[in-house]
Amino acid sequence: MLSTSRIRMIRSLEQKKYRLELGCFVAQGDKIARELLGSNLNILQVYALESWIESNRDIFWGLKAEIIQVSASQLERISYLKSPNQALAVVELPQYQTDEVDLKQNLTLFLDGIQDPGNLGTIIRTADWFGVRNIYCSKTTADLYNPKVIQSTMGSFIRVKVHYTEPGDFFPALDKNIRVYGALLEGENITAVSPQLPAILVIGNESQGISQELQAWINHRVRIEPSHAGSGPESLNAAVAAGILMAWFRKI
Amino acid sequence: MLSTSRIRMIRSLEQKKYRLELGCFVAQGDKIARELLGSNLNILQVYALESWIESNRDIFWGLKAEIIQVSASQLERISYLKSPNQALAVVELPQYQTDEVDLKQNLTLFLDGIQDPGNLGTIIRTADWFGVRNIYCSKTTADLYNPKVIQSTMGSFIRVKVHYTEPGDFFPALDKNIRVYGALLEGENITAVSPQLPAILVIGNESQGISQELQAWINHRVRIEPSHAGSGPESLNAAVAAGILMAWFRKI
Repeated sequence: MLSTSRIRMIRSLEQKKYRLELGCFVAQGDKIARELLGSNLNILQVYALESWIESNRDIFWGLKAEIIQVSASQLERISYLKSPNQALAVVELPQYQTDEVDLKQNLTLFLDGIQDPGNLGTIIRTADWFGVRNIYCSKTTADLYNPKVIQSTMGSFIRVKVHYTEPGDFFPALDKNIRVYGALLEGENITAVSPQLPAILVIGNESQGISQELQAWINHRVRIEPSHAGSGPESLNAAVAAGILMAWFRKI
Repeated sequence: MLSTSRIRMIRSLEQKKYRLELGCFVAQGDKIARELLGSNLNILQVYALESWIESNRDIFWGLKAEIIQVSASQLERISYLKSPNQALAVVELPQYQTDEVDLKQNLTLFLDGIQDPGNLGTIIRTADWFGVRNIYCSKTTADLYNPKVIQSTMGSFIRVKVHYTEPGDFFPALDKNIRVYGALLEGENITAVSPQLPAILVIGNESQGISQELQAWINHRVRIEPSHAGSGPESLNAAVAAGILMAWFRKI
């Protein structure tokens, strides 16, 4: 059964205000729903078509999540997508602790003012590809739990922990051995630098760059050198720049 | 003066059918309009606010383009953007010849089925950053002259020549010295390969990869190795993959 108040509740999760109030968010699609049910995240409900429930019975065993069968037209009413895809999960907002062990060993991202939902989703997906396990975001960065971002991560939000914090809280507490890299105009050409771990890679806003406050924390300034002679674009897309820099850390 | 039929003509350019019929497309914004007027493209008309016309008089000298003053509300009526930005240019669709000299010396892209307008725009912008001067696209790739793509290139469509062709026409005519690189699952890890020019870099569709027909032309199969252990995303975003591969050609 899908009451009107349930439908209203699910639809309200499109807005950050209600996500915070209710402590949950929505993720959609056959593959994402299956991955979620096998993850450490706390799944509250899955609304799904009968056929989906039938073919996934084997993964429900021992789960606390409520599985609610809905019709195609009901799924359409609660969906944020143009073509709703078999299942919709309501998931508890996770509370992640700072991952000290990972910070002291590996590559971690810090995103500063990435406002475009698609770019944020793509950065999380690329980080997942390159084995980055934690991303810290300033509060000027788009909200991961916005349904558009969740969908554009293609399920990577399940594997990569995304934390929201302020540079003023995050950087002063950082171990001194952790290098902080940031792409800045006056930086050194990355082809001339060999990146070292453990490291934080700071990715800034595409048009405004990295904020002044945050620049003060960067101790390794680098630059993706343009190859064009003279006129060319003013910047790279933030997700492309992040991808090139992560690939650079992986010694491409 | 902005007649109703003019407004209708400009709005019709949102559709490919009318762009082909009328032989022109629209590009918007203060900076793009100024760059266009200084380019080799044939600008037919610029619709602009009085203030924009006043501050750009110096670049109009000797131009054939018709400069038409419009009010803010008129600009809004002909605009495709939520916040129209001072000027809108109507530009003749360019007809580019195959750039044989560039093909035989440099890096050229071939895009196969890049359907997302934002990804196409971002790839063109990244190509511009890395000095790629020509991009050939299969006809399954989104149309550059779609207003969304034009805007997302951030002006790079002015400097990078985008050609539409078929693999069956393009590859057989190619000089045998030109290497053809493509990212394929069974390819060699790019960290183990040193790319050589002249080269074509083939970028395929994100979910379907490079089409079978086109794979036959690839003689250097490479792969961006994932760093995650076990589960992770199935693929990188097409624009991110293209950026990493172009950076790799630039010896990052």
